[in-house]
Amino acid sequence: LKKVPERAPPERILAFAPLIYVAWADGVLTERERAAVHARLTGNMKLSDRARSDLAGWLDPAAPPDAGQLADLLGVIRAHAAELPAGARDSLAAAGAAMAGAVPSPAERSALRALERALGAHGREAVRAVLGLPDAGARATSDGSTPAPLDAGPLRSYLEAPYGEERHRLLNVLASAEFQRPLAPAHDAYREQVLAWCRTLGAAGYGAAAFPEEFGGRRDVALAISWFETIAFHDLSLLVKFGVQFGLFGGSIYLLGTRRHHERYLRGAAFLDLPGCFAMTETGHGSNVREIRTTATYDAATDEIVIDTPDDAARKDYIGNAALHGRMAVVFAQLEVSGQSHGVHALLVRIRDDDGKPLAGVHLEDCGPKAGLNGVDNGRIAFDRVRVARANLLDRFGEITDDGAYRSPVASPGRRFFTMLGTLVAGRISIAAAAVSSAKAGLTIAVRYTSRRRQFGPDGGAEIPVLDYLAVQRRLLPSLATTFGLHFATRDLVRRFADADERDVRRLEVLAAGLKAYASEHAVVTLQNAREVCGGHGYLAESRLPELRADTDVFTTFEGANDVLYQLVTKGLLTDYREQFGELRLWAGIRFVAARARQALKTLNPVAARRADDGHIDDAGFHRAALKYREQRLLSGLARRLKARIDDGLDPFAALNACQDHAIDVARAHMDRWILERFLDGIRACPDPPASRVLGRLAGLHALHCLERHRAWYLETGFFEAAKARAVRRAVNRHCHALRADAPSLVDAFGIPDAVLASSLGRTA
Amino acid sequence: LKKVPERAPPERILAFAPLIYVAWADGVLTERERAAVHARLTGNMKLSDRARSDLAGWLDPAAPPDAGQLADLLGVIRAHAAELPAGARDSLAAAGAAMAGAVPSPAERSALRALERALGAHGREAVRAVLGLPDAGARATSDGSTPAPLDAGPLRSYLEAPYGEERHRLLNVLASAEFQRPLAPAHDAYREQVLAWCRTLGAAGYGAAAFPEEFGGRRDVALAISWFETIAFHDLSLLVKFGVQFGLFGGSIYLLGTRRHHERYLRGAAFLDLPGCFAMTETGHGSNVREIRTTATYDAATDEIVIDTPDDAARKDYIGNAALHGRMAVVFAQLEVSGQSHGVHALLVRIRDDDGKPLAGVHLEDCGPKAGLNGVDNGRIAFDRVRVARANLLDRFGEITDDGAYRSPVASPGRRFFTMLGTLVAGRISIAAAAVSSAKAGLTIAVRYTSRRRQFGPDGGAEIPVLDYLAVQRRLLPSLATTFGLHFATRDLVRRFADADERDVRRLEVLAAGLKAYASEHAVVTLQNAREVCGGHGYLAESRLPELRADTDVFTTFEGANDVLYQLVTKGLLTDYREQFGELRLWAGIRFVAARARQALKTLNPVAARRADDGHIDDAGFHRAALKYREQRLLSGLARRLKARIDDGLDPFAALNACQDHAIDVARAHMDRWILERFLDGIRACPDPPASRVLGRLAGLHALHCLERHRAWYLETGFFEAAKARAVRRAVNRHCHALRADAPSLVDAFGIPDAVLASSLGRTA
Repeated sequence: LKKVPERAPPERILAFAPLIYVAWADGVLTERERAAVHARLTGNMKLSDRARSDLAGWLDPAAPPDAGQLADLLGVIRAHAAELPAGARDSLAAAGAAMAGAVPSPAERSALRALERALGAHGREAVRAVLGLPDAGARATSDGSTPAPLDAGPLRSYLEAPYGEERHRLLNVLASAEFQRPLAPAHDAYREQVLAWCRTLGAAGYGAAAFPEEFGGRRDVALAISWFETIAFHDLSLLVKFGVQFGLFGGSIYLLGTRRHHERYLRGAAFLDLPGCFAMTETGHGSNVREIRTTATYDAATDEIVIDTPDDAARKDYIGNAALHGRMAVVFAQLEVSGQSHGVHALLVRIRDDDGKPLAGVHLEDCGPKAGLNGVDNGRIAFDRVRVARANLLDRFGEITDDGAYRSPVASPGRRFFTMLGTLVAGRISIAAAAVSSAKAGLTIAVRYTSRRRQFGPDGGAEIPVLDYLAVQRRLLPSLATTFGLHFATRDLVRRFADADERDVRRLEVLAAGLKAYASEHAVVTLQNAREVCGGHGYLAESRLPELRADTDVFTTFEGANDVLYQLVTKGLLTDYREQFGELRLWAGIRFVAARARQALKTLNPVAARRADDGHIDDAGFHRAALKYREQRLLSGLARRLKARIDDGLDPFAALNACQDHAIDVARAHMDRWILERFLDGIRACPDPPASRVLGRLAGLHALHCLERHRAWYLETGFFEAAKARAVRRAVNRHCHALRADAPSLVDAFGIPDAVLASSLGRTA
Repeated sequence: LKKVPERAPPERILAFAPLIYVAWADGVLTERERAAVHARLTGNMKLSDRARSDLAGWLDPAAPPDAGQLADLLGVIRAHAAELPAGARDSLAAAGAAMAGAVPSPAERSALRALERALGAHGREAVRAVLGLPDAGARATSDGSTPAPLDAGPLRSYLEAPYGEERHRLLNVLASAEFQRPLAPAHDAYREQVLAWCRTLGAAGYGAAAFPEEFGGRRDVALAISWFETIAFHDLSLLVKFGVQFGLFGGSIYLLGTRRHHERYLRGAAFLDLPGCFAMTETGHGSNVREIRTTATYDAATDEIVIDTPDDAARKDYIGNAALHGRMAVVFAQLEVSGQSHGVHALLVRIRDDDGKPLAGVHLEDCGPKAGLNGVDNGRIAFDRVRVARANLLDRFGEITDDGAYRSPVASPGRRFFTMLGTLVAGRISIAAAAVSSAKAGLTIAVRYTSRRRQFGPDGGAEIPVLDYLAVQRRLLPSLATTFGLHFATRDLVRRFADADERDVRRLEVLAAGLKAYASEHAVVTLQNAREVCGGHGYLAESRLPELRADTDVFTTFEGANDVLYQLVTKGLLTDYREQFGELRLWAGIRFVAARARQALKTLNPVAARRADDGHIDDAGFHRAALKYREQRLLSGLARRLKARIDDGLDPFAALNACQDHAIDVARAHMDRWILERFLDGIRACPDPPASRVLGRLAGLHALHCLERHRAWYLETGFFEAAKARAVRRAVNRHCHALRADAPSLVDAFGIPDAVLASSLGRTA
């Protein structure tokens, strides 16, 4: 047969030529595939002995066709391709059959199809590549012309809805001369600048959105988060200072306090007449708030509460506004009344007088320079038996009555603790939203720059834009896709949060924790890639990428370290959101999920595991099913492993640590799936068909990139065969290629004005 | 059978109990595994019908045993375990056979073994876990006591050899009061501080090591690199300034110039009396040096050379020492003599007078603040028809004769270009060495801090050190392992480079490019992980992690962007180092490798693909073979793909871009394998047995982590079965666990004095 292609058409053996070519051309024929091909060839086809042995020769792993023979084979195929009827161009199997000049028998046709699938060559792309047909491309119109790039306008309006006007009003403020950002400002000047900006925004009412109208607000938490994510386009020190003052300090007065606290302090917090701190974290306890050791002891004799820091590890640490500007702090401490401990409560404590001098017993320290966010004056606070009035206890969830008794509407101390921490939910959603904004800013800069920057090119030809390189596309475009997914996911979560009632709280806490972790992780990776694809230019402060990267870095840590938050998500999934944390509850949840696991094993489908045609690989239904399968299987597997280890005598804590990587994978898998579904919801609701089409491809890229990242797992579980895993990887490349032309419009749709973006590399053309 | 475990011992069916337990307990039984287990059960064993149907019930995917049943099963197993003879504790198969109370037939024994392998339960760890035996641990001694932690001293001496004393001398200088590093210094002051440090080191002779004795040097390039990597522990701005002055500026005078240049300038460069720049990169051309557009035109009338910058894109950009301190520059430009272009050459050009004033025609600009390395005064240089004497041409590889003709000992302009760029080899090796030092510094801080920092713990128990968490171990310990691998790889490359002759040059260039890319990528990831595991504390400047992270970030870009360097490695592999770059040569190489590829398909071994016992998974021979297989297979696959695309009509440039991700994978796979081999060489030569043992485990972790990262690929190619991929993942966890206790000693062995490390988190206890 080595010579057969030259005396074409020999016999029906030619039907296999395109598939044999594919089998070898990518150089990735596995032993298993080779065996499969061979079995099908020798089993199902009516072939002469001569043809059979020739074919076997073509598939001999000890002597694969050499490069010249493959080229000859391709020549023969292409010579035939020109004369193929249109119908025979749908698949390589059909093309092969037509080339052989014979109508194949049903058994032969099925053998060809199976072979095609086994090779992952069941797509139009494969047909096109092998037969040498022109690239139809993702953006070609029916008449063959290249369509105009996506119009960013309608997409932008859709992304900004329902707060377009409110956002534009704020963007105009941020783009004004007053808000112009200095390049690498000196430490002290930067802190004062950020305070001044914060005062301007506070005075204009931007800090009050979430509070009731009677305190100058709009009672609209969704608007508050929308403004917050808009500020994230500008300066992240301003963002954090803004969040500390209005979200954490103001928010905890509003949510943990009662009427008298609102009347006395809420306007001051909301308009920045009273600069405040949120003093939760301690030096010795970052993410483990329950174990904080600052004490608040009720002294019935004087009707006061004594705040005390027992040792250095119990200092409040990393507290925004504490080093310089804060006058009052919401302090979290272990409340003790009549010798009995009631767990963590929040109290209002003055820390400086009106001139900014620390009050007696309050020791303040500056945390000093940081990797980023140097416009925020983080500090440490220690209390030496500081006395405050009983009324300073923020007593919505736990009060000290006039007769000195402790009383709480929430009976269980554990549940009370988590109810109070519920105030962190808005903060975590806001951080997620801000992380998404930072990723948008970084991508805007990197996509614009790499669309213009040219480097290298074919010998003698012009240099090409950096964004035309596959390696650069792979660094930016999957990130761009996930950023859109996170946009819709965040918007959805904000809406749920704004409309939430009691019963949703647990689920929202879990989603907020997961989204904060996922989005902050995403922002760090995205900004690092953005910096690297911009090369040395991206390392200059004037590009703004260094600042974005350094400022967002700590997003993975503050408001809960990501690994801790992911485990919170997993515990939520194990307990079906019904209960929190307690080991007994967790144990019950593990038993429940482990028992439920029998369902998980039913869903594997050996046919689907092999399907590798573009239609299937690109199908949103497949994406959803694959991500859901992973989530469920990981969860039930974790439950079984935990149960086995606990049965084994490990305590639940040690059991969870032994499976910690697995537990974190569960949470990420949950978020992968949930974000994809919110992305698809967002596409369904999109009113602009061209935007909707591009978003559809972005959602596909987001999902395929998730599948690619986890393809080892899919292969291990048998959900993918090897051909499918390769098809997924190729599909990521294909989607990158198809989206490249629209990438500049897609970042335009983020709608960041040049003056706010403030990047030498990222200006609009 | 659901009840069988309770009426034990029933019959030989109990032999399967441990394996059935393993099959379900991890919740990861794939459909394929289930089928395999079932086939072996029903085919090879002599069982009664009743037992056969009971067993089938236990393996019914539609009704897996529930949690309670599994616990019961475990109870029965453990009840027997206590009475098992010692020999029966070697494997679950042996344990099962002993429990059944019958000597199994050879067929049965082989069925059990096969099943054990299929489940990836062929290890002592599995036996121990299922039978409930005490944890022998990796560090247990033969008498059962816990051994003392590794003594860091001998390992440190071995790591520092052969330059221990020279390094200590320099470390003493760096630890002195003069070199104390300010926390977040102001921009301008920092630049002057770094210059002053550089002058101190230059005056003490630390800049001259590579130059001949007659110019004050030691003619020892290995010592020069050893000092360079020692400085990297201290301040990376100093490192880069030092490298620009002595390595790039001094080095190019030495390597590209001839006797008269050495006599006139080399001492000035080597002792920093003549601050200089290395002006290669242009604004429009970062990594593509061949296309630079600065011109150097010989004017025969005046016997001068005219240096000119035709437009802004041709400005020299990012040039260290250019903004403030440089007096002279080695300028790379396109040399034109008598109207004929001879490609890129280097010339000495004065840019400032002795008072620091820019010379006429030289336009200097400050690049301004950067993400890091702000102690280095990077700037831009443009030339407006600046004239220099003909003697200023660094003319070792191309001269202009007295009669105005161009003459070169290297005939081909292409080869001449790469010969000159060969001067970058030392620079790339040095950057790799410095990146490894930065990773060592970051790991020292993070390992010490996470060994002390405690967070969370079992309910009611003490909090545990953060480094005891699997998730933290996974972030630090594989990085620690690879850092040791890179240490030995760098040392090996330095030795080869110091001893190199002409014939080694191509191979060294490729290795230097690959090692620079690999080590800089590794440093960025390691330092990011170090920052994150230290939480908010790692974000404070006083931890030193922010500075290390920000300073090293650009290592992935300068001296050649990593993606470009990796492709250079791949081209080197395709052409077997014989030729460089030219498309025709590349094409010949592709044909050659593609033709050679037939070997690659012979090595797959279906038995090895299933082996998952600890002995095999931990075996260095397996690691080497697996990494080598990946490298070769990726390379031959790439050659085939490129060839197919070129045959298809793509030009080689477009073909390479279409396979760019694959091409970069080839280079990384090459480096994975090469680094492992140098690691193993380093272990063989280690004189201290305890150190050697720990290094052996580190090498295993490095290799297993590579295999884990690429397990999707190994599954796709059939080199791994699913059970093996899972065994690799478990082995990474096992190695992390085993290395945790020695981690503090391992970072002590890096030998960074507290005063040089200068970290609030990383001090020795």
